[in-house]
Amino acid sequence: MTDLLWPGMVHADGLFGDRHYLEAMVAVEQAWLDALVEVGVAPDRGTDLRGLVDEIDLADIARDSEPGGNPAQPVVTLLRERSSNGWVHRGLTSQDVVDTALILCARAAVHRLLPELRDQVSTLVDLADRYRGALMPGRTLTQHAVPITFGLKAANWLTGVVASAERTAALGFPVQIGGAAGTLSAAVELTGSATTAREAVGSAAAALGLDEVLPWHTMRSPITAIGDALVSATDAWGVIAADVTAMSRSGSRIVSDATPGGSSTMPHKQNPTRAVLIRRAAIANPPLGQTLHAAAALAVDERPDGAWHVEWPMLADLARRTVVAGVHTSQLLSGLRVDDVAMARQARSAWSDLTAERTSIASFVGTEPSDGDYLGLTDFIVDRALAEATAFLERNAAPIYKEK
Amino acid sequence: MTDLLWPGMVHADGLFGDRHYLEAMVAVEQAWLDALVEVGVAPDRGTDLRGLVDEIDLADIARDSEPGGNPAQPVVTLLRERSSNGWVHRGLTSQDVVDTALILCARAAVHRLLPELRDQVSTLVDLADRYRGALMPGRTLTQHAVPITFGLKAANWLTGVVASAERTAALGFPVQIGGAAGTLSAAVELTGSATTAREAVGSAAAALGLDEVLPWHTMRSPITAIGDALVSATDAWGVIAADVTAMSRSGSRIVSDATPGGSSTMPHKQNPTRAVLIRRAAIANPPLGQTLHAAAALAVDERPDGAWHVEWPMLADLARRTVVAGVHTSQLLSGLRVDDVAMARQARSAWSDLTAERTSIASFVGTEPSDGDYLGLTDFIVDRALAEATAFLERNAAPIYKEK
Amino acid sequence: MTDLLWPGMVHADGLFGDRHYLEAMVAVEQAWLDALVEVGVAPDRGTDLRGLVDEIDLADIARDSEPGGNPAQPVVTLLRERSSNGWVHRGLTSQDVVDTALILCARAAVHRLLPELRDQVSTLVDLADRYRGALMPGRTLTQHAVPITFGLKAANWLTGVVASAERTAALGFPVQIGGAAGTLSAAVELTGSATTAREAVGSAAAALGLDEVLPWHTMRSPITAIGDALVSATDAWGVIAADVTAMSRSGSRIVSDATPGGSSTMPHKQNPTRAVLIRRAAIANPPLGQTLHAAAALAVDERPDGAWHVEWPMLADLARRTVVAGVHTSQLLSGLRVDDVAMARQARSAWSDLTAERTSIASFVGTEPSDGDYLGLTDFIVDRALAEATAFLERNAAPIYKEK
Amino acid sequence: MTDLLWPGMVHADGLFGDRHYLEAMVAVEQAWLDALVEVGVAPDRGTDLRGLVDEIDLADIARDSEPGGNPAQPVVTLLRERSSNGWVHRGLTSQDVVDTALILCARAAVHRLLPELRDQVSTLVDLADRYRGALMPGRTLTQHAVPITFGLKAANWLTGVVASAERTAALGFPVQIGGAAGTLSAAVELTGSATTAREAVGSAAAALGLDEVLPWHTMRSPITAIGDALVSATDAWGVIAADVTAMSRSGSRIVSDATPGGSSTMPHKQNPTRAVLIRRAAIANPPLGQTLHAAAALAVDERPDGAWHVEWPMLADLARRTVVAGVHTSQLLSGLRVDDVAMARQARSAWSDLTAERTSIASFVGTEPSDGDYLGLTDFIVDRALAEATAFLERNAAPIYKEK
Repeated sequence: MTDLLWPGMVHADGLFGDRHYLEAMVAVEQAWLDALVEVGVAPDRGTDLRGLVDEIDLADIARDSEPGGNPAQPVVTLLRERSSNGWVHRGLTSQDVVDTALILCARAAVHRLLPELRDQVSTLVDLADRYRGALMPGRTLTQHAVPITFGLKAANWLTGVVASAERTAALGFPVQIGGAAGTLSAAVELTGSATTAREAVGSAAAALGLDEVLPWHTMRSPITAIGDALVSATDAWGVIAADVTAMSRSGSRIVSDATPGGSSTMPHKQNPTRAVLIRRAAIANPPLGQTLHAAAALAVDERPDGAWHVEWPMLADLARRTVVAGVHTSQLLSGLRVDDVAMARQARSAWSDLTAERTSIASFVGTEPSDGDYLGLTDFIVDRALAEATAFLERNAAPIYKEK
Repeated sequence: MTDLLWPGMVHADGLFGDRHYLEAMVAVEQAWLDALVEVGVAPDRGTDLRGLVDEIDLADIARDSEPGGNPAQPVVTLLRERSSNGWVHRGLTSQDVVDTALILCARAAVHRLLPELRDQVSTLVDLADRYRGALMPGRTLTQHAVPITFGLKAANWLTGVVASAERTAALGFPVQIGGAAGTLSAAVELTGSATTAREAVGSAAAALGLDEVLPWHTMRSPITAIGDALVSATDAWGVIAADVTAMSRSGSRIVSDATPGGSSTMPHKQNPTRAVLIRRAAIANPPLGQTLHAAAALAVDERPDGAWHVEWPMLADLARRTVVAGVHTSQLLSGLRVDDVAMARQARSAWSDLTAERTSIASFVGTEPSDGDYLGLTDFIVDRALAEATAFLERNAAPIYKEK
Repeated sequence: MTDLLWPGMVHADGLFGDRHYLEAMVAVEQAWLDALVEVGVAPDRGTDLRGLVDEIDLADIARDSEPGGNPAQPVVTLLRERSSNGWVHRGLTSQDVVDTALILCARAAVHRLLPELRDQVSTLVDLADRYRGALMPGRTLTQHAVPITFGLKAANWLTGVVASAERTAALGFPVQIGGAAGTLSAAVELTGSATTAREAVGSAAAALGLDEVLPWHTMRSPITAIGDALVSATDAWGVIAADVTAMSRSGSRIVSDATPGGSSTMPHKQNPTRAVLIRRAAIANPPLGQTLHAAAALAVDERPDGAWHVEWPMLADLARRTVVAGVHTSQLLSGLRVDDVAMARQARSAWSDLTAERTSIASFVGTEPSDGDYLGLTDFIVDRALAEATAFLERNAAPIYKEK
Repeated sequence: MTDLLWPGMVHADGLFGDRHYLEAMVAVEQAWLDALVEVGVAPDRGTDLRGLVDEIDLADIARDSEPGGNPAQPVVTLLRERSSNGWVHRGLTSQDVVDTALILCARAAVHRLLPELRDQVSTLVDLADRYRGALMPGRTLTQHAVPITFGLKAANWLTGVVASAERTAALGFPVQIGGAAGTLSAAVELTGSATTAREAVGSAAAALGLDEVLPWHTMRSPITAIGDALVSATDAWGVIAADVTAMSRSGSRIVSDATPGGSSTMPHKQNPTRAVLIRRAAIANPPLGQTLHAAAALAVDERPDGAWHVEWPMLADLARRTVVAGVHTSQLLSGLRVDDVAMARQARSAWSDLTAERTSIASFVGTEPSDGDYLGLTDFIVDRALAEATAFLERNAAPIYKEK
């Protein structure tokens, strides 16, 4: 599945695509069927649902999703037919399958994201340390303010990425098994007892590696929490991209992408394409994350009448685009060329402006201005940021995630 | 291309998909190449670009779109290679191709939308007229207020749909030909004169059936205007869907979808699936339309550094989802079962509440309450809405649009 | 009423503030009362409602708005008490007053906006013409591309502002008089006839200078159309602000604000404050405009259950912030210092890059590169933009708007 | 300060208003001045800044905020003049004051919110427990599905409110002290040493009761985290409001607000005004929260050029409206009238539909349908939700927050 309108989407290949989503739905049905067997309710026929529906069925499933308004119904029909096992999906409702499959796909996206975040943290630790003394002009409201170093800037980026990584690493992935109206009435009827029904839920959740929680058909914070974390990631990367595009401007370039984009007719072009594409995602994501909140707030009855349905593609787009932006950010940072000579040149040529504050303070205090580069707590800030990042990396040593 | 996460997407099949977009890009290149021939600049080799790139190339094009950040560059490379005509794309910039192809796809979406809007107007004219006397309770803030008729409600829906249809029918579709920085420098250099370059632009625009306007690389109102119109369409349909879901609630149902959604285990279910799916689109679209505005407002320099790129999928998603919602609304309206007996029963059983206002006014004026159904200007409003709708239909008799 | 969190809000003073809105509500009640007198239904007591409620009542009105959920009810109570005229508000519903007062305030905002837009058009006409030959580097994706002139840039800004001004000047301002459920039942009961009720509506609309239309209680395109136009204005200004901040960067400054912002401790600072504040509005407005669409799409029954209420402050904020941004843009443009010497210096120092495209094309064609500044159709584009702007100014000669 | 366009705003009185914000800015300046004294840098003049600027200065401060683009500069000018203490603000930058004051106001809002959330949890614990057996129809996509109880519904609301309360209670409130470009250069220059500067920061943070963190001028997750939590609160309440409006509909009413809204002319009206006003906030908040993310993602250089400024009113509006909605939700829940007789009547009259699933499952299994009310795990779910809520209440016993 290509997406010409989102260059770089190949980096999210397989994530939240129809095939991935279909596999996730089948995994949910399998886990539940196995659970029914395990608790002694369904007969053990060794039914393996995987492979019974495939890419070739997608067109039919898509078509048959329309009357009921969700893709679970036609999948269940096919699985029952092809497995000849009528126990498939018994006790579940469509929302259970749709939601749990969403969570599985979201987890897969998060598991692709976390190594990117960890790589970025490592790269930024290097950049912040290496360039902690690389003088450059600090700018506020686009204007020269006081001196900073590129290491300080990298440390600020680092703090943002670590905050986003902490939030992303802390996400929970709950199973959704509630039955038609969140009471598990069918599961209890089917298994004959509340205890057995609960055992089946626990078994299915464990098989999927998901948290066992109360049904959340109309309580959508599991979805909005994932959305908020993904948006926070592009927030952090958006700042990096904005700084890189600003510092890459022709005529005053102090950083560049090691593999910039070119032009067929303008051979000199060194477009900061990755930063541009990251910036794109940073603009795109907040409205998507917001739509998840709007949907959450409009949930009604025991299954929402439209607000639920809008979540699916929003979460998928958000996850896919965030993964792509994560890859772009990793690439951008690891290939970033830092021209510390040009930085210093810019700083020195604006030195009297950049140190006007120092003069002003010294004059107020009635002393001579201090010597040196007027960098304040820069070293301390870099050290502190590095320490926090290192602690994060230690807590999250690779490989932290394994797909079940 | 299926989309399991947007049931009903099949109704937008072919629209703004990668194949459609690729064809649109090729059409732009063809029009420009032909224009260069026509104005006597390029040799007439009878080059037909159509068919030179196809679905099979999509994966390569997608991959090669990433370095430059847009899909035009790899398409040009392939077209030049396969046509052996180096004149392909000369004088254009990537943005010209990407933007003009977006406009072509958007126009195709609008042309699918307009017949739906027209059909809805026709159906609503019938409903408003047929049920102009079908008494039902009017509700404000969910509570019984004064009597209305279902015809009045349909007339209100009609007014909304006509307003949206007027706005959609008035949309302009401009060509984008500006060259690297919107000066057409390359086109003038290539053709040797400003006059010839302008002739070429005019010729290409005419061939594509698009309006000839000044370059709009960073002036994005052509895009936001389309976006706003599409959002306005789902606004109008969202009201219909909200009313239908409210009036379909089990236990107080007064309308229903002729072909409701079912459930595998709950045979009585008559889910208003179409209304639910329309409501989904009505929630999804405003944030997408807003993203187009945010992108427009962040445009900078002679080609924006991310704000441009974010427009493409947003416009595509907006267009596709709006077309689907348009089909669903047409189906919902044409199959709407109106239970005027139940309506009247609800109205009569709440009659003293519904006419409390009448009593109150009569008491204030010191007269006897009027006879009859206390419907005020209902008939006049229905008549006026029908007249405006009829005038719209006359101005927009089918078939009003033909693809070039 | 100050707003420390929106510096510059003083430029919207009086607009959509509580006093302004209260006056607008009173104006609506006055117009309706007068209409009832005029059509011979209410006795002519010469009641003048203006001044009967005032700023001093705001706290009570605000408090008493909460139980019913809108400010019309307590205002009516006060007006009836203080005028001793029980005919006040008879035949209307709260929504009629709230909506029509919103429209009156929105019109006042638009009438403040239009002169700003016109002034901007005039200033930009001057800038585009004066600097049509002022060479500077064109940039795409932040990188030097081909030469442009500052006049071309100003012409592009001009095209955006004219488009926004056209859209804003075309806005309609409809009255809302529908009664409890949009049937005008109370008005007909009160006046004794449909004809008289319609005459009263016409009379009130005329007195307020508003368009007479069918009730639009749940058909909110009058509100979204205003919102879209306001957002489009900040879209156009956002581009100007983005360009100005980019071109103002210390170290590569080519434009500056004649009265930049300063700093207490950094005396060299020349912050492009106005551009920064405009940019703020350009980021703030799209979500506000979108909320109006979301509200429109969620309208239900004969008066929405929350979606209506959310519109009021969104439209007010949108209008106030847009007016402020309009003033800032007028000031920024009229005080813009254009450093054409620095522009030319930047262009010439990058000349081989900026003309690499020319070399490439000449090489393809097999000719010598053209002489001159490689500006393509720049002059034509500037001329065309000036002609369109001049036509706009002629069609909209001041003073085009007068408050009734 | 009244707000006619947001009925109920009185419940946020004093929060984030200009006076509140001004006091917060003064508190920041006081804390920093005291810190400079404490670390032995500034002379101890016993300067008390509180009261030196007041409501009467707001108009001047607002006017003088415009040139520099923020309200800190004019406040500093006034404080220095009136205290005759030139040490005021030395070492800080405007952003330090603006941001820290924002955080203080946000904390005040959160501290008003938490007791509301706690009260709601208590009320919902009662409702869920009392009505755990109150049979009513469960609905999916508006249609009768299987039986639930009102206690289950309350338990679901409870789970949402607890999740939101946990998130809100976990919020951090960091100080912002970074100086012009986040290096604290001025503070170090002023105090003569990095160590002393850090001590001053620690002292000021402690005095304000805020967390000491690295400067976050362009790393805005402290703001977005607060925003996300506030939006999550209205998400949870929006569901309650949606359910209450749906269950309050005339003709099928099963719950009602003990103090509903009325109408001047329709004496029977029992408008669920509180639910309507909560719903309003639930629609309004997601776009505001999203704007904070968009601003965070667009931060650039060492102080953003517009993206920073847009945060201030968005956070203020978000906080104020959330507090109002919190009060409304507490009131709605504590005054909710639950008509369990009507609930049971609705359930019993639809009994064969509501138990069709049971019949279907029994038929599949080949057994007799179970006896009883087909409520599945309802009791278990209610118990679990109550247990989680009780644990929350124990962890967050009042009074948990004290303003410094």
